[in-house]
Amino acid sequence: MKFNYSNVLNELIGENGLSIKEIKNSKTFLEKIKENIEEKIDADYYALKLPFLMKQETSEIKETAKLVQDNFENFVVVGMGGSSLGNELLHFAINGIHYNDSPLRKTPRIYFMDNVDPASVKTLLNSLDLNRTVFNIITKSGSTAETMQNLLCITDALNKRHLPLNKHLIFITDPEKGFLRKLAKEFSVKTFVIPPLVGGRYSVLSNVGLLSGAVEGVDIDALLNGAAEQAEKIKEKDVLEDATMLLPFIQYKLFKEKGVNINALFTYSDGLSYLGMWYRQLLAESCGKRFTGITPLAVKGSTDQHSILQLFIEGPFDKLIIFIAPVRYKDDFNIDGNLADDEHINYLKHKNASQLIRSEFLATQAALNKSKRPFVSIEIPEIDEVSLGKLIYFFEYEVIALGEMLNINPINQPGVELGKQYTYGIMGREGFSEKKDEFTAFIKANKKYIIEE
Amino acid sequence: MKFNYSNVLNELIGENGLSIKEIKNSKTFLEKIKENIEEKIDADYYALKLPFLMKQETSEIKETAKLVQDNFENFVVVGMGGSSLGNELLHFAINGIHYNDSPLRKTPRIYFMDNVDPASVKTLLNSLDLNRTVFNIITKSGSTAETMQNLLCITDALNKRHLPLNKHLIFITDPEKGFLRKLAKEFSVKTFVIPPLVGGRYSVLSNVGLLSGAVEGVDIDALLNGAAEQAEKIKEKDVLEDATMLLPFIQYKLFKEKGVNINALFTYSDGLSYLGMWYRQLLAESCGKRFTGITPLAVKGSTDQHSILQLFIEGPFDKLIIFIAPVRYKDDFNIDGNLADDEHINYLKHKNASQLIRSEFLATQAALNKSKRPFVSIEIPEIDEVSLGKLIYFFEYEVIALGEMLNINPINQPGVELGKQYTYGIMGREGFSEKKDEFTAFIKANKKYIIEE
Repeated sequence: MKFNYSNVLNELIGENGLSIKEIKNSKTFLEKIKENIEEKIDADYYALKLPFLMKQETSEIKETAKLVQDNFENFVVVGMGGSSLGNELLHFAINGIHYNDSPLRKTPRIYFMDNVDPASVKTLLNSLDLNRTVFNIITKSGSTAETMQNLLCITDALNKRHLPLNKHLIFITDPEKGFLRKLAKEFSVKTFVIPPLVGGRYSVLSNVGLLSGAVEGVDIDALLNGAAEQAEKIKEKDVLEDATMLLPFIQYKLFKEKGVNINALFTYSDGLSYLGMWYRQLLAESCGKRFTGITPLAVKGSTDQHSILQLFIEGPFDKLIIFIAPVRYKDDFNIDGNLADDEHINYLKHKNASQLIRSEFLATQAALNKSKRPFVSIEIPEIDEVSLGKLIYFFEYEVIALGEMLNINPINQPGVELGKQYTYGIMGREGFSEKKDEFTAFIKANKKYIIEE
Repeated sequence: MKFNYSNVLNELIGENGLSIKEIKNSKTFLEKIKENIEEKIDADYYALKLPFLMKQETSEIKETAKLVQDNFENFVVVGMGGSSLGNELLHFAINGIHYNDSPLRKTPRIYFMDNVDPASVKTLLNSLDLNRTVFNIITKSGSTAETMQNLLCITDALNKRHLPLNKHLIFITDPEKGFLRKLAKEFSVKTFVIPPLVGGRYSVLSNVGLLSGAVEGVDIDALLNGAAEQAEKIKEKDVLEDATMLLPFIQYKLFKEKGVNINALFTYSDGLSYLGMWYRQLLAESCGKRFTGITPLAVKGSTDQHSILQLFIEGPFDKLIIFIAPVRYKDDFNIDGNLADDEHINYLKHKNASQLIRSEFLATQAALNKSKRPFVSIEIPEIDEVSLGKLIYFFEYEVIALGEMLNINPINQPGVELGKQYTYGIMGREGFSEKKDEFTAFIKANKKYIIEE
């Protein structure tokens, strides 16, 4: 993994940049941050131990995955936020965006139920051969409203076809608490544990991410090894030579001192673009509180050069771009291009297909440099399990470090509670009538300026 | 369509909000903006005439669509940015995210090639029965690098199977200029026109969006009628009673006076969430220039409540949320939920599936109100062609109005040019060696601070 931060420095971008001196001067500050993290690693930041803990715990996951592979055609991950985004990341990064359609696929098709849009739920359940389908229900609390509703839709469909729940469901939830745990006992449903100290957005290297990964053929040992390797590196490294500390410091300084309140993860790969969606939750929920926080954008190259790049190049100086790309692209091939001999096309002939996306990755950086915009870049050798494990661990650690720098608790999410309570109130759940009254008052007040058109 | 802006006013959110007085006082300013737009409608803002122009021009589109439907199983849209995002919007909003897998589907499967990731291109081309596939190549300039490369990959694959290009390709491009037009003549490829005055991001209501729409069964007449209806409404309405003028004014005022530099389109629907991706380009490319511009976020409900909502509720006061939802959801159904009698789940039983997502839509607004965050909401009766046509026209007009308010030309995108030239330089295209030298100098300078880890 190669981390390049040359282009956040004033040597390259002038007054929009940081000075190397202020970075070097931060050594004591960064060491203190790192100490804080290490001190909390057995409690608050327990998730950072997952690579080591899970390495010893994969046999049951593998057995279950084998059973699913041998007996089923479809595997549906049912979860919200951290109970889905990490799974999507592993899936698309390793297996690509056309995996379900691929003639080379040898493992079950993978689907995600991460919303409660009736049309999506209905169409998906109608399109699957349920007899050949396993639903992996993931919720840490055991009672997430959307996941509960999707579970009910699934069990309705299974019951209608007289299919046994314990054959078609696998749960991942808290070891003791919650409604899912209770159901598991009642119906003898195979259940994996989410460690109580691991929050949803930090759970991809727990059973949460590993089961669906193993089912679709992801090498979960290599994934965990990559993550563990990254953890070891962080331990050894001087803070000023450690990207895991320098990146959050750059984010922090640009945010606090230059008003850079937007960070875009610009991934040059279809599959790896889901890293951006995973990171969006990680950064937003971890560091967006107490009236502060950087807003993450997930951007995909080269696609979004034709969408949002104009704003990056010529808009306000409120963004830091974090570029990520592999050096080698999977399934590369040579373009024959025996079509026409024309200047609009002949520069593409007899090239490898990867040369264009790789060139765009570098050209976009050069253009941003020309307009004096700060960016860093991360290059990995190729998108495989080891690199992905490293990236995941890297970003989890760096977001925790950023939280520490902002003096924020990066593992809670108190802001989402109220909306949930209003939802329960509206839906008539017992014990939430007071919230319903509050909600009704809001609706009344929110009626004054409405235009019909 | 119901536009509610109560919750951007200080009556509801205090000092973070605007006063109704300053909105009322803007009447002259808004009238001038509207006048400016109407004056340029035959040139710069020609795209705003598309609904009326295209209503008379759909017969050839429909004929071609019928031919494709009768003879092919797969239809692949090949384009970048505005040559794909509008197509994706129509596709997913009307037909849902599981259309290709749906047992009820009666029209060809739809795919999008909007990137040059070798693995995606290879897997897609290998998974399709090419004999039963049409590729719709869309590029206004006729020479977009990514689209050219994908075209070469496609023609390589067709040639290898001895399939005639003019049976499996349909072009959409400039009426006279460009390489695609030249190819069309050489190989007798059926070609539709993009009007020269219509820029990519404003082209969904031209042939660009209509052909793939018609192929997948979208009622393009209803779509154009909806858009035309919206256009008529804008013409008739007083600016202070017109959401098309009030929304950009709210965006403008909050940006200029309250530092709100992020606008999130929060759509409560899987399919309609592609409106957010389409709007992201529309706003970013139209208004992101001359060191100004608002950054658009595409956010999906209820999914992203479990991802980015924490930041919206408790983060900095730098965001305006634009909520969008239908009142009635398609394919709604009743949940039996005969699973367990438990407080964690029984509030969901015997409800319609849409009640939860609808409640989340309102509950999230109530929670944002409680934390004094500005938002507006747009409700449409349901997601159908008429509503979608209205929404598309509404947003195109309001973004142009926002550009006018910011004193920016909303129809060009000068910032993306340099990156393209660097790409050509790197790829060795003739005539770009100077850019290559510039690029090489950048790479050399960008080497100073690299960490291996």
